[in-house]
Amino acid sequence: MPEYKAPLREIKFVMDEVLDMPSHYAKIPAFADVATPDMVEAIINEGAKFCENVLAPLNRVGDEEGCTRHEDGSVTTPTGFKEAYQQFVEGGWPSLAHEEQYGGQGLPESLGTVMSEMVGTSNWSWGMYPGLSHGAMNTLASWGTDEQKETYLTKLVSGEWTGTMCLTEPHCGSDLGILKTKAEPNADGSYSISGTKIFISAGEHDMAENIVHIVLARLPGAPEGTKGISLFIVPKFNVAEDGSVADRNAVVCGSIEHKMGIHGNATCVMNFDGAKGYLIGPENKGLNCMFTFMNTARIGTALQGATAAEGSYQGALAYAKDRLAMRSLTGPKAPEKAADPIIVHPDVRRMLLTQKAFAEGGRALVYLAAQQNDIVHKGESEEERKAADELLGFLTPIAKAFLTEVGCEATNLGVQVFGGHGFIAEWGMEQLVRDAKISTIYEGTTGIQALDLLGRKVLMSQGQSLKNFTKIVHKFCQAEEGNEELAPFITKLNEYNKEWGDVTMKIGMSAMKNRDEVGSASVDYLMYSGYVTLAYLWAKMAKVAQDALANGTSEEDFYKAKLTTARFYFTRILPRAKAHAESMVAGADTLMDLPEEHFAF
Amino acid sequence: MPEYKAPLREIKFVMDEVLDMPSHYAKIPAFADVATPDMVEAIINEGAKFCENVLAPLNRVGDEEGCTRHEDGSVTTPTGFKEAYQQFVEGGWPSLAHEEQYGGQGLPESLGTVMSEMVGTSNWSWGMYPGLSHGAMNTLASWGTDEQKETYLTKLVSGEWTGTMCLTEPHCGSDLGILKTKAEPNADGSYSISGTKIFISAGEHDMAENIVHIVLARLPGAPEGTKGISLFIVPKFNVAEDGSVADRNAVVCGSIEHKMGIHGNATCVMNFDGAKGYLIGPENKGLNCMFTFMNTARIGTALQGATAAEGSYQGALAYAKDRLAMRSLTGPKAPEKAADPIIVHPDVRRMLLTQKAFAEGGRALVYLAAQQNDIVHKGESEEERKAADELLGFLTPIAKAFLTEVGCEATNLGVQVFGGHGFIAEWGMEQLVRDAKISTIYEGTTGIQALDLLGRKVLMSQGQSLKNFTKIVHKFCQAEEGNEELAPFITKLNEYNKEWGDVTMKIGMSAMKNRDEVGSASVDYLMYSGYVTLAYLWAKMAKVAQDALANGTSEEDFYKAKLTTARFYFTRILPRAKAHAESMVAGADTLMDLPEEHFAF
Repeated sequence: MPEYKAPLREIKFVMDEVLDMPSHYAKIPAFADVATPDMVEAIINEGAKFCENVLAPLNRVGDEEGCTRHEDGSVTTPTGFKEAYQQFVEGGWPSLAHEEQYGGQGLPESLGTVMSEMVGTSNWSWGMYPGLSHGAMNTLASWGTDEQKETYLTKLVSGEWTGTMCLTEPHCGSDLGILKTKAEPNADGSYSISGTKIFISAGEHDMAENIVHIVLARLPGAPEGTKGISLFIVPKFNVAEDGSVADRNAVVCGSIEHKMGIHGNATCVMNFDGAKGYLIGPENKGLNCMFTFMNTARIGTALQGATAAEGSYQGALAYAKDRLAMRSLTGPKAPEKAADPIIVHPDVRRMLLTQKAFAEGGRALVYLAAQQNDIVHKGESEEERKAADELLGFLTPIAKAFLTEVGCEATNLGVQVFGGHGFIAEWGMEQLVRDAKISTIYEGTTGIQALDLLGRKVLMSQGQSLKNFTKIVHKFCQAEEGNEELAPFITKLNEYNKEWGDVTMKIGMSAMKNRDEVGSASVDYLMYSGYVTLAYLWAKMAKVAQDALANGTSEEDFYKAKLTTARFYFTRILPRAKAHAESMVAGADTLMDLPEEHFAF
Repeated sequence: MPEYKAPLREIKFVMDEVLDMPSHYAKIPAFADVATPDMVEAIINEGAKFCENVLAPLNRVGDEEGCTRHEDGSVTTPTGFKEAYQQFVEGGWPSLAHEEQYGGQGLPESLGTVMSEMVGTSNWSWGMYPGLSHGAMNTLASWGTDEQKETYLTKLVSGEWTGTMCLTEPHCGSDLGILKTKAEPNADGSYSISGTKIFISAGEHDMAENIVHIVLARLPGAPEGTKGISLFIVPKFNVAEDGSVADRNAVVCGSIEHKMGIHGNATCVMNFDGAKGYLIGPENKGLNCMFTFMNTARIGTALQGATAAEGSYQGALAYAKDRLAMRSLTGPKAPEKAADPIIVHPDVRRMLLTQKAFAEGGRALVYLAAQQNDIVHKGESEEERKAADELLGFLTPIAKAFLTEVGCEATNLGVQVFGGHGFIAEWGMEQLVRDAKISTIYEGTTGIQALDLLGRKVLMSQGQSLKNFTKIVHKFCQAEEGNEELAPFITKLNEYNKEWGDVTMKIGMSAMKNRDEVGSASVDYLMYSGYVTLAYLWAKMAKVAQDALANGTSEEDFYKAKLTTARFYFTRILPRAKAHAESMVAGADTLMDLPEEHFAF
């Protein structure tokens, strides 16, 4: 099993040097007093210890044992999961980024993202239990009545209870417009919820006293499609007047899924059989209510891509230094040993550097999005908030789909570095492949994200959302004009940045004639966007490194490594964008010409 | 679970129309009388039934149950595996492509490859038991004494016994030069073999009466490295004078591995504790003996890539026609239903066509290699055999590494088409991902194949092996000059074919200065070679389709589908070669500049 070591120096690099989080926090009144540099550092260090010592050792256990459902519908989580959650609650972690009036610590969501990264790399399955709670809390915070917040949100913030998001049904996932779960009004103002929800992460478990389900359902006579969906709170145990847990509600885990990965998390079929629920937000606006924090949830999933790359890289790097095989083609490097450590071989290095470039570039992208998210929610001016919201909306599908796709690639490379041993469970490398695969699917598949990016974000804004971002990139490039050392990065970045606009224009034009051009280009467009966005971030990281070296840093090796990795990214990874550029403009007929019934030929 | 349907029309298309196997068999004296068109068709049809009806239903069973090792070292295979093997033996399948004098049917190895494809798509784990036997048989056929052949080969050919290949040890896989297993000579001419072998597929099981291990070991005083390795036969049960099974030999399965996939196959740690063995082939030439049929074994693994794509495609296509979600962007296609089947969405089609292009292109590549293999072993003239051997040697690492890499991609796309359901075990799609992953590792990893291609095959022949192949491609392009309909394919193919030579020259030049340039370029070079080789085969398939359509075929839809898929491949997949071309010439310093101890930064 790869041993997890929180990459504190890397985290600090992105937070302090690349994104200047200290100034960012200082500028936002809500955070200025609480998110001080000392406080931020103390929290991250404390979080790192918890993840390294408590969560990481449970990662294999969770995979091996999985969850067990008993006849009464109760679910037992893997050994140690419950105790770890208890420690997490005692440490006050659930309340980190929530409002003080509901018991939160009022710290920035972006700091929560840093903690989520460490939790996720050390034990993704475990991290999903508090992760889902976080989604439920955001819904309640945005749309709950004062009473609902008092009753449910405070218990979620303290961590005494956990939450879920109940969206998917057996016949619909991406297409929630056709969901069937019903909500019948009761005389007392509550509703009776009936229907079956599937793929409910953390839907049932033994870690907390109560579970608060946030459920999408239809009211009687509601319009068809997405405009007739409302949102309900359905607690596992009804709540008494005094806020304590009362009788069992009619919502039961019918079964748990046997899955490719994330075995430690209970993925439940939840049967609602006239369960008592409470409307949250306006009638028939359930999907809109969900969308208000969709960006946050998707950034959380984007993180899974980056953590998968980081975790697999840590394992593969340790192995590559240790495992002996063959001699370097340029002569023995460890002549005293039976063979050289495999890290001397160029192709092993290519695999490691690919993982490294995605892990570190991915962290920068997720933190950048998290920074925008802070501003969206707590920025001082309306103008700032609006700009951040637009940028976040643009970056979110890129971060979610691109980072999870390359995260999966990175985990596969991790197995490959181990050779045959990578295929064996005890090394833990193949678990990372299995765990990571879900990230390209849940919270909107890569295909859905790609349509969101190209169709909704870019084309529906007449390209404005793209222009807003390419302008940022362009300004950065302009500022570095004449910077000779960075020129190889800046020149390329400029070219791709310009091409990005060109291909968008081209697709936009053909989409006016044929809407299928959007779907035909979308995933290539998204991947292209991802490679270019990461190029921008790697160029920024290179710039920071260059400055540090010019200023006589004491950490010369650290900053040089950043420059070397940036160069690797630009010369060995970024060229992939070209293939996507060519493929995306090939035209929809390359996909649509084959009649459905001829696919079998 | 995807239901397996043997793609008989597709198989026929490649065999009869693309590669003209009937003439190929007729030209080879050893096959002219036995591999007649009727016989070939009858065998394939019979094989298809066995695979569809017997093996396919056991595929999930094998994954779910896995193998069980008991305290005495014996291993029980999954329910039904043993009975299926019995039927396989009764059907005479093990003897298909082996010499008549040892009980074989003397049919072409390429026909065995067709059967292996169907076996592999329907149940890869099961297919590995006879697959490993096949490797042992080839070794015995090439290097065994008459007595050894009589004793062991006949029993393997009949299928009464199975075989293994015992190469890997805990500390060495790719680097066999450092293996430690010892062979001490006994007074009776036999040897006492001691050591530990790992990752021994089919090392122990309950399907056959005896197991014949082919084992690499060192004689006392043998030279260090690969030049001091000899090959031994070590039977599980010693064999009595009359050929019957006698007492147990000192070779025991110490444990079986818990693996990512291929659960139905027992991957064993084999402990040799002074086991009685017999030298096969010359002393200290064990590795050379193994290499004589390495191409065959690697083509067998290449097949796993193509079968993974085929199996996953069959599942994904059925699901995409059935599953309803969203409306087509160009208006409802199934207005009578709640939503359109997802096959109307361009991106779902992109995923399906990617799988299809790899499955069908992969089949063509594997069969082409198998055709060369027939000639290598049974070709009439020395000249023919030599040319075929060179072409096979060139195609083998491409087929093995490229097809397994894109096969893995295809299985991941299959999961993606299913969305959340793809991640759930019962649908069988995630099993294909887990099963396929081993194919990029065993029989030489992608990295090892890439070094074999670029270093050993291309550069060591001064580019001759590449030239031999690009000449074939060039001739094909020349012949189609002026063919307007094929022009989009031919023009592109010509460009890439030329560039192939150019980049090779470039790498060759830099490799003269720095040997690490080979390892630095190798995997990109291999993938580039794979994309171009498949482009050649897709162009050939397009040509066949064009001719059939021009000649007024009754299967218009079938041939049109081939043209459409070829166009998809050329416009949406082949552009990836550009990214590899740019990356491979980026220079070894992009990988070697980072000091080992700075990877942690």
